[in-house]
Amino acid sequence: MNLTAIKWNSDHLTLLDQRLLPTKIEWIDLFTPTQVAQAISDMVVRGAPAIGITAAYGMALAIKTGVDRPAAAAQLLAARPTAVNLRWALERVENLGDDAIEETAIAIHQEDIANNRALGDHGKSLLREGGVITICNAGALATGGWGTALGVIRSAWNHNPNIHVYALETRPYLQGARLTAFECAQEDIPCTLITDGMAGALLATGRVHAAIVGCDRVAANGDTANKIGTYQLAVVCAHHNIPLFVAMPTSTLDTRCETGKDIPVEHRDPSEVSDFRGTPIAPDGICVWNPSFDITPAHLIAGWVTENGMWSPPGRSPFDVETGNDR
Amino acid sequence: MNLTAIKWNSDHLTLLDQRLLPTKIEWIDLFTPTQVAQAISDMVVRGAPAIGITAAYGMALAIKTGVDRPAAAAQLLAARPTAVNLRWALERVENLGDDAIEETAIAIHQEDIANNRALGDHGKSLLREGGVITICNAGALATGGWGTALGVIRSAWNHNPNIHVYALETRPYLQGARLTAFECAQEDIPCTLITDGMAGALLATGRVHAAIVGCDRVAANGDTANKIGTYQLAVVCAHHNIPLFVAMPTSTLDTRCETGKDIPVEHRDPSEVSDFRGTPIAPDGICVWNPSFDITPAHLIAGWVTENGMWSPPGRSPFDVETGNDR
Repeated sequence: MNLTAIKWNSDHLTLLDQRLLPTKIEWIDLFTPTQVAQAISDMVVRGAPAIGITAAYGMALAIKTGVDRPAAAAQLLAARPTAVNLRWALERVENLGDDAIEETAIAIHQEDIANNRALGDHGKSLLREGGVITICNAGALATGGWGTALGVIRSAWNHNPNIHVYALETRPYLQGARLTAFECAQEDIPCTLITDGMAGALLATGRVHAAIVGCDRVAANGDTANKIGTYQLAVVCAHHNIPLFVAMPTSTLDTRCETGKDIPVEHRDPSEVSDFRGTPIAPDGICVWNPSFDITPAHLIAGWVTENGMWSPPGRSPFDVETGNDR
Repeated sequence: MNLTAIKWNSDHLTLLDQRLLPTKIEWIDLFTPTQVAQAISDMVVRGAPAIGITAAYGMALAIKTGVDRPAAAAQLLAARPTAVNLRWALERVENLGDDAIEETAIAIHQEDIANNRALGDHGKSLLREGGVITICNAGALATGGWGTALGVIRSAWNHNPNIHVYALETRPYLQGARLTAFECAQEDIPCTLITDGMAGALLATGRVHAAIVGCDRVAANGDTANKIGTYQLAVVCAHHNIPLFVAMPTSTLDTRCETGKDIPVEHRDPSEVSDFRGTPIAPDGICVWNPSFDITPAHLIAGWVTENGMWSPPGRSPFDVETGNDR
């Protein structure tokens, strides 16, 4: 499986335009950090780990094009506010010499793939055969490759082909329908697409035994920012005694945020909700609330799986993969 | 407010094509019960009370065009399976003489509007100022006029203009975005549109004090079939101690169903989810689960408001509008 959305070409970065998937496969070449920041902001590339990798390459392009490093870093950091991986990647290259940035960006990219593989190995035992529900896309397209939440599903499916993915379509941007369903279709991982309102009804059928989701930032206490709809999914999972796991590369943990209240939540343009590819689907001038993320409190999360194994916030016993319980 | 989607013209029925709202206002003329059944099945008209009224007019057209009455009734009954109002309306005209059917259809239509007004009067005290969340469209367009759930909101808003509607867009058919937001915009009822995944995050902000929804069939024990997503909304409301009310014309109560398990749930075409107006939004051949309704168990519902006041299933004390508690 070599699905990747980010390609480095020494003097430019090439991104798969994820806004057009699955109907069109088009690549965009970027030569400057400004272009990279715009691509992040416009969601050509999305997914917390992928944004971090892309920003690191953006800094490599700052060197190549002679752009002021602090200015480039500030522009990239401002591109999207919620995913902490952006800051994490920029801080990782911040104090390096100019000549070390490109190789570090490449290393960040390669390590992300390796970390996802390790995360998948640690997480695969969380999933049994049968239905697993996920939201948005935390797959190869959201990362350097392989994926976090979908990476765990991928690892589990390699181990046990009787896994069935239920992909929430994830309005307004439809990352579930366009990207997760696409990744599953590419590899013949069994997948059923549902709308975001169907999760409750699906769980009531008994077909789903676990939920696994990605994350954009996890606070020190375990409160987790992820795609809008994750909190609601966690509430519905709790109502049905179905564990919801977070696939969390350690680069997504932000111990500088004590709780979820400290995580900035991006609100995006109302037209993402009121229009579909330029066609209005709501009356002119309608008021829209469009937070791109929500915060799931730690107590609704069964466990966090990282590239190093299970993680738990301080004071909480880690989830035991063998018994399926908090230790 | 005279927004109506159903017009009777003695020799034909004219329906507002709700599939095209809010961008186009087009009317469709129907002359035969077959055309009426097709319009119901294709969702030119939708909403349990509106479907019942339309079916009654379909029987009037059977008389006008000399179509065999039992054949016409069977065809209309089969058009959509979940909303019991279809059966209710057809049974109401079943044993009448040919010459009484048209006037009974007109009476069903007029009574529905009057019942909605009465339902709104009974229900308006359930809502205080501030945010009220609703799903799908249970407004004038879903009924003979005025509406059930949105009728209660309309009545409450006439009484207290500081009500703010949060409309779930209601995928896949977007009745919330296209119809509820449209009705609110027409009358300047304050309304904010959100995607179906945002309900939990919205409730967590504390901006919403009540949910009110329509229904397609209520079983004798109070289990309620309504638009897919209602069950999940009810779970999330319960988690936040926010009451969820059902606006239920008595024509939607089906005592022949003991519990929600007896209510047939319609599954519709996968393309409703995988395509948007002919444009694919998911990979070719993706598996889709597309139930059009779900069942909310009675224990998650704070109260049912009818044209006769509050209703409760046997053995349960009715909701007290004054105190906001079960009596």
